[in-house]
Amino acid sequence: MSDLLESYAAGRWFRASDEGAPLLDASTGEEVARISSKGLDLGEMTSYARRVGGPALRALTFHERAALLKELGLHLMEDKDELYALSYRTGATKRDSMVDIDGGIGTMLSYSSKGRRELPNDTVVLDGALEPLGRAGTFVGQHLYTSRPGVAVQINAFNFPVWGMLEKLAPAFLAGLPSIVKPASQTAYLTELVVRRIIESGILPEGTLQLLAGSAGGLLDELQVQDSVAFTGSAHTAGMLRTHTNVLHGGVQLGVEADSLNCSVLGPDVTTDDPEFDLFVKGVVTEMTVKAGQKCTAIRRVIVPDAIADDVVEAISARLAKVTVGNPADDSVRMGALASLEQREEVRKAIQSLRSSAEIVYGDPDHVEVVDADAERGAFLSPVLLRAQKGAVEPHDVEPFGPVSTVMTYGSVEEAVELAARGKGSLVGSVVTHDRDVARSVILGLAPWHGRILVLDRDDAKESTGHGSPLPVLVHGGPGRAGGGEELGGMRGVLHHMQRTAIQGSPDMLTAITGRWTTGSERAVGDVHPFRKSLAELAIGDTIASASRRVTLADIEHFAEFTGDTFYAHTDEEAAAANPLFGGIVAHGYLVVSLAAGLFVDPDPGPVLANFGVDNLRFLTPVKADDTISVTLTVKQITPRTNADYGEVRWDALVTNEAGDPVATYDVLTLVAKTWPQQG
Amino acid sequence: MSDLLESYAAGRWFRASDEGAPLLDASTGEEVARISSKGLDLGEMTSYARRVGGPALRALTFHERAALLKELGLHLMEDKDELYALSYRTGATKRDSMVDIDGGIGTMLSYSSKGRRELPNDTVVLDGALEPLGRAGTFVGQHLYTSRPGVAVQINAFNFPVWGMLEKLAPAFLAGLPSIVKPASQTAYLTELVVRRIIESGILPEGTLQLLAGSAGGLLDELQVQDSVAFTGSAHTAGMLRTHTNVLHGGVQLGVEADSLNCSVLGPDVTTDDPEFDLFVKGVVTEMTVKAGQKCTAIRRVIVPDAIADDVVEAISARLAKVTVGNPADDSVRMGALASLEQREEVRKAIQSLRSSAEIVYGDPDHVEVVDADAERGAFLSPVLLRAQKGAVEPHDVEPFGPVSTVMTYGSVEEAVELAARGKGSLVGSVVTHDRDVARSVILGLAPWHGRILVLDRDDAKESTGHGSPLPVLVHGGPGRAGGGEELGGMRGVLHHMQRTAIQGSPDMLTAITGRWTTGSERAVGDVHPFRKSLAELAIGDTIASASRRVTLADIEHFAEFTGDTFYAHTDEEAAAANPLFGGIVAHGYLVVSLAAGLFVDPDPGPVLANFGVDNLRFLTPVKADDTISVTLTVKQITPRTNADYGEVRWDALVTNEAGDPVATYDVLTLVAKTWPQQG
Repeated sequence: MSDLLESYAAGRWFRASDEGAPLLDASTGEEVARISSKGLDLGEMTSYARRVGGPALRALTFHERAALLKELGLHLMEDKDELYALSYRTGATKRDSMVDIDGGIGTMLSYSSKGRRELPNDTVVLDGALEPLGRAGTFVGQHLYTSRPGVAVQINAFNFPVWGMLEKLAPAFLAGLPSIVKPASQTAYLTELVVRRIIESGILPEGTLQLLAGSAGGLLDELQVQDSVAFTGSAHTAGMLRTHTNVLHGGVQLGVEADSLNCSVLGPDVTTDDPEFDLFVKGVVTEMTVKAGQKCTAIRRVIVPDAIADDVVEAISARLAKVTVGNPADDSVRMGALASLEQREEVRKAIQSLRSSAEIVYGDPDHVEVVDADAERGAFLSPVLLRAQKGAVEPHDVEPFGPVSTVMTYGSVEEAVELAARGKGSLVGSVVTHDRDVARSVILGLAPWHGRILVLDRDDAKESTGHGSPLPVLVHGGPGRAGGGEELGGMRGVLHHMQRTAIQGSPDMLTAITGRWTTGSERAVGDVHPFRKSLAELAIGDTIASASRRVTLADIEHFAEFTGDTFYAHTDEEAAAANPLFGGIVAHGYLVVSLAAGLFVDPDPGPVLANFGVDNLRFLTPVKADDTISVTLTVKQITPRTNADYGEVRWDALVTNEAGDPVATYDVLTLVAKTWPQQG
Repeated sequence: MSDLLESYAAGRWFRASDEGAPLLDASTGEEVARISSKGLDLGEMTSYARRVGGPALRALTFHERAALLKELGLHLMEDKDELYALSYRTGATKRDSMVDIDGGIGTMLSYSSKGRRELPNDTVVLDGALEPLGRAGTFVGQHLYTSRPGVAVQINAFNFPVWGMLEKLAPAFLAGLPSIVKPASQTAYLTELVVRRIIESGILPEGTLQLLAGSAGGLLDELQVQDSVAFTGSAHTAGMLRTHTNVLHGGVQLGVEADSLNCSVLGPDVTTDDPEFDLFVKGVVTEMTVKAGQKCTAIRRVIVPDAIADDVVEAISARLAKVTVGNPADDSVRMGALASLEQREEVRKAIQSLRSSAEIVYGDPDHVEVVDADAERGAFLSPVLLRAQKGAVEPHDVEPFGPVSTVMTYGSVEEAVELAARGKGSLVGSVVTHDRDVARSVILGLAPWHGRILVLDRDDAKESTGHGSPLPVLVHGGPGRAGGGEELGGMRGVLHHMQRTAIQGSPDMLTAITGRWTTGSERAVGDVHPFRKSLAELAIGDTIASASRRVTLADIEHFAEFTGDTFYAHTDEEAAAANPLFGGIVAHGYLVVSLAAGLFVDPDPGPVLANFGVDNLRFLTPVKADDTISVTLTVKQITPRTNADYGEVRWDALVTNEAGDPVATYDVLTLVAKTWPQQG
């Protein structure tokens, strides 16, 4: 008897108290492992996550969490050979395993680098601009994201045992939530191996990752308001989760990615001679055969113009005929096995349903030639292409979770959009066209029904990652049948795990609460010029109140001549007087900010290394000749960079004239050394 | 018999086929109107919204929709007297009616002005930055919000018959969704009057607003994937909506604001002598008595330090003793009636439950002195304050939807946060403290449990809008018991009605689809300098490819001297050489952008009126002495301003050196006349 998979629960590896159920090799039918969660204390797991994992994780800043994800990703790269070897047993070819293993690790690394770039080195995230709530400026509002003191339960599908886990784990981890991972049993041995390598590495804080191998029955009973469940799988199981009392009435948040009837639309502009025709055909065949079509993003509906349908069917069939099926570890094999014999039976039933309004134009669901394998003991199935009658219902409702697609045809672009919409909401759609007007009208028609849409043509084909590939920086999810959830999408996927709260108070209170300087709050003007302070010495609110400078007509004229910016509003009194906004000569905006820099800069070498940018510069009051300006510069945000000897300081800059009117507001971005004089 | 309220359905006023149920004056028990939806064709309403209202609305840009909201708001202001007169019959005092009527119209006007400022004058909204997806730049991603081709059903509570409708209608309307408004029957006569005035005005496109007066039974059966339901009311009704098959399995989106057990926390720093003590007491009493405590945001739990609890109880009681109850139309009356005798019975039952672990310290649930009214025929109730035992359970679970609050006490800040969290999620909390450290720790502890938190102290008290007031610019909603929904929050409330989709394609395709110039797509350099083109003549992609200019050491030295920006990196060769980022003298960033302006500006009077700002300026490659720079400026976005003879043009600016390296990137913001020479 093979090994019983273990769960990692409450700080230790747990072995079930029974023999468990067998998990079989998809291609050979041999037993790979056994699985059971009998005797596992699910309440202990959730409370351990909340008690041990959550606090440890939330004690770290986003950048510190991101650094751990990077370390973990690089560590897992070293274990790839071992993971690939086991992955074959799921029926996956080498190419399939790349999507799962390299794709999963890559997603984690993407979250690490994007997290460091786009999140603050802090534990809360500000959302949107400050909202003035009173005229005098004593009452303001700021939206803020904070981490939930809960646990993120992740219920994954069998098709991507590595990617499925890591694409959910990485955003939850960044968001400060400990995870309980529950893989689908069928391929859980691969997930278990990855979790084992992660736990052994000791990289993640204890309690931030637990594994539930086996049945999750009763897990939702343990969840509370601050907990969430992210589920990927069938609409049927999603429906069951939705009716759990803790989801309906207990405030548990449920996110669902369900398999959907994704479509690919061939534009009406494309002829058989266009490169787009081949791109379309290749795309369909790829999506039918990668992972033997067992992808929630695969193309199930092939929507093509009436006139070209025969050509499309012929071309797809010809290409499918070249797909070798068999032992996934064999290099000549293009498509491996389905995950199990039961899955194959399900797909055959779905094909049978489809045949009530579509005819098979390629493949035989009951027979397939295989390489280096037994077609009956292994869950092998031929790719099957169907062609639907006009008005067919089943292709919009029946999902064959395997290497199966149905061709349907349209007359007008409106009809194509309508056909796509009949899928009732999808994870992804694609449109293959080189006509920009076609693209615009089809995409805008399809968009409300989709979480992601690929526009494929000769221009992006070389770099395109294809219809079926979710990317860490783009949202993954979709409305309606696709489950209504949204994952990934860069930091969007992190913020979904956090609570957004509007905070109202005085500017000083908001500065204290957010850790960032809030417009209207105290400015600390001290004896030391803040440019003389290192990152460690600088404090939020530290301020430079500059001397003032009169801007003369000669300054303006000289600046115009020197820079070449002789725009009439700076040089021609008569023409400037006619300008409805100025009514006379005004200083260049660039002159104002240049002089402001002259007023606030401390010239000598010091901890401020460089000004690397300016944000949100707005010119509010024109500066006329002989106006006198001064500038106030205040430390707004301090972001130490991990693994560097400097950090970023964002300064609030306010230029005013002698009447006190705001002339310009902007943020100045500088790099500041962590210590000064620099050590080491 | 009084009038039967009518529904506005499918373009006409509909009268039910039966007599309907009576709606009684809250204070007198007299019949105000009757209500029934018998015979109303709900399927016709939903299909009319999708067929007539939706397309009409989505043909308008966001700015055009915003302009209609403004017109409508101003129009309704003229009907205020009539609305106030009818509002008294709901039990509302004049102050209560202001919150409902002025608050509702104000919310609509806020959406109008914020919509014009923060949304493009277009029909799609870009979300986030462009995502490069390939190294060569031929494959990029952009998230986009589009309008759903569905209908927004809005089911409102009885307590705010005007605000409740308008705060849901305005964001949905801006988002491009037609609305079906279903008010709670009890006070539907006031909503019906507002809808009548709106329809009469002819301001909104036909089909964008329908009214369902009476039972909504069967309405959810008519809803589909692209439709949504926004519900405000009890957790019980919310639970029923959640189990509807179209919500569970049909993809209908349901947003819930449920009444929650909101708390107000008095900081441990506050003594009876501090102004915060009085602010706290006033806040509690206001929330208990406004709308007779019938607000989903009212303070139900009063959380105070152990040591000061007696003082708090005494002060609240003393203040409550001054609250006159009675005929809401009487100017001396501070608190009117509950909405109905049934509501009063509900509240009395809730008080009875609370008494199992709390004692009444002020008020008698069975007796109240009233002014100019009959205490029994009208639904009057005394304010009731309770004080809970330590460890009491009921105050965290039982909600008396009336003028009732319970005081509970804490020892440590952690205990205060824990008590607040026992409410299992709330719409709003408040913290009254003048101590910034207390504020930070309490707020960050409370935030994951709340949609909004008010920090009240002496600094913001004068301008504070109080604990109980949702504001259009801040999110309204909360986790767990509060329903898990989110409304308002400025444009957040609009985007919740739209579908976010990631679009992948070539830059040119994205430009065509989004209507905004995408980095990497074609630039059109023509014979006419784009600064000579009016807004009407300018096209996305129009480009200025400038001449080049050598930046000399003399230029840098001169600029330093002229502006006063003598930072060592620009002036001191030896010190600059030691700078780890530069390794020698570099040009000022401000010099680079100033010279760039000199290169791209067209000096003569023309349609470009002003440069009003710069966004996202980043200095990427240092410019050294004798480097040669040039600039490329491309039209990125064109935003005509409604009701003005100019619009905004956002230009993509790219400064490069002679090696082709990017020196600086930024967006230049200009105002451009719609026509040139200007007409009229």
